[in-house]
Amino acid sequence: MTDALRPGQTIGILGGGQLGRMLAVAASRLGLHCHVYDPAEGGPAAEVAARATCAAWDDEAALRAFAEAVDVVTYEFENVPAESLDLIEAIVPIRPNRRALAVSQDRLDEKDFLRDLGLATAPYATVDDAASLDAALERIGTPAILKTRRFGYDGKGQARIMAASDAAAALAEMNGAPAILEGFVEFSHEVSVIGARGTGGAVACFDPGENRHEGGILRETTVPARLSAAQRTDAVLLAAKILTELDYVGVLGVELFVTASGLVVNEIAPRVHNSGHWTQDGCLIDQFEQHIRAVAGWPLGDGARHSDVVMENLIGDDVDRIPEIAGTQAAIHLYGKAEARAGRKMGHVNRLTGPAR
Amino acid sequence: MTDALRPGQTIGILGGGQLGRMLAVAASRLGLHCHVYDPAEGGPAAEVAARATCAAWDDEAALRAFAEAVDVVTYEFENVPAESLDLIEAIVPIRPNRRALAVSQDRLDEKDFLRDLGLATAPYATVDDAASLDAALERIGTPAILKTRRFGYDGKGQARIMAASDAAAALAEMNGAPAILEGFVEFSHEVSVIGARGTGGAVACFDPGENRHEGGILRETTVPARLSAAQRTDAVLLAAKILTELDYVGVLGVELFVTASGLVVNEIAPRVHNSGHWTQDGCLIDQFEQHIRAVAGWPLGDGARHSDVVMENLIGDDVDRIPEIAGTQAAIHLYGKAEARAGRKMGHVNRLTGPAR
Repeated sequence: MTDALRPGQTIGILGGGQLGRMLAVAASRLGLHCHVYDPAEGGPAAEVAARATCAAWDDEAALRAFAEAVDVVTYEFENVPAESLDLIEAIVPIRPNRRALAVSQDRLDEKDFLRDLGLATAPYATVDDAASLDAALERIGTPAILKTRRFGYDGKGQARIMAASDAAAALAEMNGAPAILEGFVEFSHEVSVIGARGTGGAVACFDPGENRHEGGILRETTVPARLSAAQRTDAVLLAAKILTELDYVGVLGVELFVTASGLVVNEIAPRVHNSGHWTQDGCLIDQFEQHIRAVAGWPLGDGARHSDVVMENLIGDDVDRIPEIAGTQAAIHLYGKAEARAGRKMGHVNRLTGPAR
Repeated sequence: MTDALRPGQTIGILGGGQLGRMLAVAASRLGLHCHVYDPAEGGPAAEVAARATCAAWDDEAALRAFAEAVDVVTYEFENVPAESLDLIEAIVPIRPNRRALAVSQDRLDEKDFLRDLGLATAPYATVDDAASLDAALERIGTPAILKTRRFGYDGKGQARIMAASDAAAALAEMNGAPAILEGFVEFSHEVSVIGARGTGGAVACFDPGENRHEGGILRETTVPARLSAAQRTDAVLLAAKILTELDYVGVLGVELFVTASGLVVNEIAPRVHNSGHWTQDGCLIDQFEQHIRAVAGWPLGDGARHSDVVMENLIGDDVDRIPEIAGTQAAIHLYGKAEARAGRKMGHVNRLTGPAR
């Protein structure tokens, strides 16, 4: 643990949502303090963090004071502006590193990176205007999906193209933003691997979970996922390949389509991931503590699972079911959000389904 | 869940030490806020609580403002002055109730209560002066142990009497405080049961753990404890008897001596208990969440254990072993205390030893 943070030192977290909240709790268990930076007041993380700064991403004085008050900086979402990171990085290390963030901030760069690593992805093409969209559709065919290159999450900034006649409307939805056309992948189900890499280069992965989405939002993750032993090994090896190529430090989520011809990478997220929330109740060291251990320079947990788990997201007024859920043997994780808007992630529930198979 | 707290409401916690810290984290998972009240500045709980008041136990204005800002009050240690509780209770409910607190605040009342319930205790006698100590020694014999009736913990306020000639010195150690003489109990080992009772009267117990003390301080708890099936049942039944008799709401710790003639109650603690820390990594719903559920009027977890666990306390400079412990597969729980004084509980470590047997 050379250069590792000692108990009493402080981790800065960019973003104060539920992921920041669960990272802060994990850090507290290790005796590490957290300082959350978020432009929004009263987000989920501030309540359980030692300190919180509420300031804009372009508030240079606030960013500087934040960077000077912490010993390492990490982030809970990937859309922090590059200029903010430049300012912080001149003062204190950022983990995971900037390249990991850059690659995952841009869907085109991400696809290029994965292809260059020899990993399978959906067919894709860059789209800047009607002409390049026509050319892309010509090559990829329909159905296809047009996505903004940047700032997309939970199905936002996306438009389906079922036939060439949908092209103009889909392009209009991009609002002039650079975009990428992706072909549809025929898959039986989606799984994800939550991997981690430490400062010394050690890699540890949690067992893959099987994801079910509704309306573009993760609904449920079941562990173990339906995978053959060979697929399971493939999933872990490709996550390790990505982590190592990026010289990554921290937890990374990799979403994979399971197809007849093998695993196809859907996307990567350079942070703790919703599909890894099951680890809170299925593993001794969960994804949040794993991330904190990595960015703090501590040894990683081995990813071992003691129990099989089904994780269910509570979205919007799902949270009204809490009285009923509280009467079942389920671990409840609420994010402390006051208002239950439609599509808003309010919490999640983990149910154990038996000892690890 | 009639009259139950809803997510967004606030639990007041009297005491801001490590137990308050872990209660606050558990409450946050249920979307409940915590407001900690402690005379000491910067204790372990404040960091992870939504709000903290640092004021003396006799600061009536601060107590009143605290009571008015919360929806229910609980406590993490049993030595809160009665006058402070009177003031709070006029404004907001206190759970567990005052009788539970009164009984466990006084070793003599506690012993009387247990005896009246038909439970076995060490032989005991009240001691107020040299004459009553002589009479008590006459009846109980040596070795025996003289303890202050109030304000004792972790072996403090206790003096052993190996022979009648030790009596005067032992009495002097009590500094004139009312005391109780307890006879020694021949026991093979100590176990404890962490039980809980909800507002509706439902009782749930965690499996008994086996405790090993050093120098009067808990060193290690191993689950499962060495107990026959009959002893295990006895332990749970007697905990339930205590909970029900006290009309208790919350988590209660019961320390038991295992003797050739059955279980003997050593003491009860009207709060989450150090010997229940193993539940954080051995159960889906741990003792801290169980206590929060109870005082919030939520249904209880069933106490089921998914894994066997050994919990080790980190006392004083044990915490210097963290870099080494971090390299093993162990769950680390540090309390965020800056200074590692001798005898001070700095954290604990849970190690899983396999699926629950």
